[in-house]
Amino acid sequence: MRYRATVAYDGTLYHGFQRQVASQTTIQGELERALLEVGGVAVAVTGAGRTDRGVHARGQVISFELQWRHGSTTLKRAINANLPLDIVLVDVAETDADFHPRYDARQRVYEYYIYNQPTRDPLVRLYSWHVRERLQLLPMQEAASELVGSHDFATFGQPPQGDNTIRQVYGAEWRRQDDTLVFRIEGNAFLYRMVRSIVGTLTQVGAGNWSAAEFVEAFRAADRSRAAASAPPQGLFLVSVSYEN
Amino acid sequence: MRYRATVAYDGTLYHGFQRQVASQTTIQGELERALLEVGGVAVAVTGAGRTDRGVHARGQVISFELQWRHGSTTLKRAINANLPLDIVLVDVAETDADFHPRYDARQRVYEYYIYNQPTRDPLVRLYSWHVRERLQLLPMQEAASELVGSHDFATFGQPPQGDNTIRQVYGAEWRRQDDTLVFRIEGNAFLYRMVRSIVGTLTQVGAGNWSAAEFVEAFRAADRSRAAASAPPQGLFLVSVSYEN
Repeated sequence: MRYRATVAYDGTLYHGFQRQVASQTTIQGELERALLEVGGVAVAVTGAGRTDRGVHARGQVISFELQWRHGSTTLKRAINANLPLDIVLVDVAETDADFHPRYDARQRVYEYYIYNQPTRDPLVRLYSWHVRERLQLLPMQEAASELVGSHDFATFGQPPQGDNTIRQVYGAEWRRQDDTLVFRIEGNAFLYRMVRSIVGTLTQVGAGNWSAAEFVEAFRAADRSRAAASAPPQGLFLVSVSYEN
Repeated sequence: MRYRATVAYDGTLYHGFQRQVASQTTIQGELERALLEVGGVAVAVTGAGRTDRGVHARGQVISFELQWRHGSTTLKRAINANLPLDIVLVDVAETDADFHPRYDARQRVYEYYIYNQPTRDPLVRLYSWHVRERLQLLPMQEAASELVGSHDFATFGQPPQGDNTIRQVYGAEWRRQDDTLVFRIEGNAFLYRMVRSIVGTLTQVGAGNWSAAEFVEAFRAADRSRAAASAPPQGLFLVSVSYEN
């Protein structure tokens, strides 16, 4: 049987989603370890998005094959009982035999949190980027609006495979929540480092170091060397992945 | 010169506020270490509330003596540069020579966070107590209202020194914030473990295991053995401490 599940995690202690060398703890590795405990056989987990080291998720989507006779509610409970407290299956359900979480994904949503106050806050440090200087939301939003549409995003990242750097962005919006600025971006797919690179560069606009026009010029150049430094991983959340139906 | 400061911290990795044996990391110990770095001489820090191991603070108040000639803005920056990222001075100012953060405190406010959903959330695990079964706010609030006033709180804790278990509670209210229940309690002072013991016992009311009347009966008995199990530390925040003027 093939299953599809939504996974939430605190990425603080992990070397990203994807299993790499055996000595590094990854989300995929922990999920596969839990499935081995539950099913008794080695199971490969496929994920929709390869989040980097330190990046969090509320709605990562995975799939895996498993023989299980006790229903999906019991399966969810059994897997969660075998996962560490910083990873959880939010839901799990049977799916089509040919479902692939990455290839079938139609839309991904990411959010990035900036804690924008002169003094740092220890209680949000694991889930936001602390930027001391006051950022201006209006020019950041003006620049971000230019991202919407089908564009070459080469300035902001590399493709995980191949060399196609064209992506479609459906929405890119900033909002203020008390002392925090939240950037929400929706697209069909994202280049490696794309959201963090966009946020790092937009922050230069918010700080007044770049004009919105300079941002757009760097973006249109489709040249990786034109981006500002990427924002750090702990502010980034994979919020959801959507599929047809 | 005597200084008063507001301190925020993530208590996850600490053995509470108060310095104890040298091998255990405490908030007080870290503050004193930073002050030694900044001032060059050993400085004793006094705190308003001795938060337990794993308890957090947004508004702990401390005082200390220091010779410093560069103004309080620079002092704050210097101390924060020497503190770990999970502790921060929110503000610092000169104060009267006889100011004592514990004895002079008139009011303390604590909040306790319960994440009340069947499935745990890895992203709030360090800052809330996960209670799976649905809690009913109304009976919990009915019971909590009985705490307001001047009462013997012996059921819910021990005095840090002496044997007076009478305390004044000015307010005790539950509110729902999405999937989280927040308990806010304001009082002149609190017994050791008092807030966590009250929350643990009120949760029995919310779960339907105790009636509000049974809660009140246990409270009036002024008998420590009548409380339910205390709520765990990671949901508790010392929010603020107030003084006259």
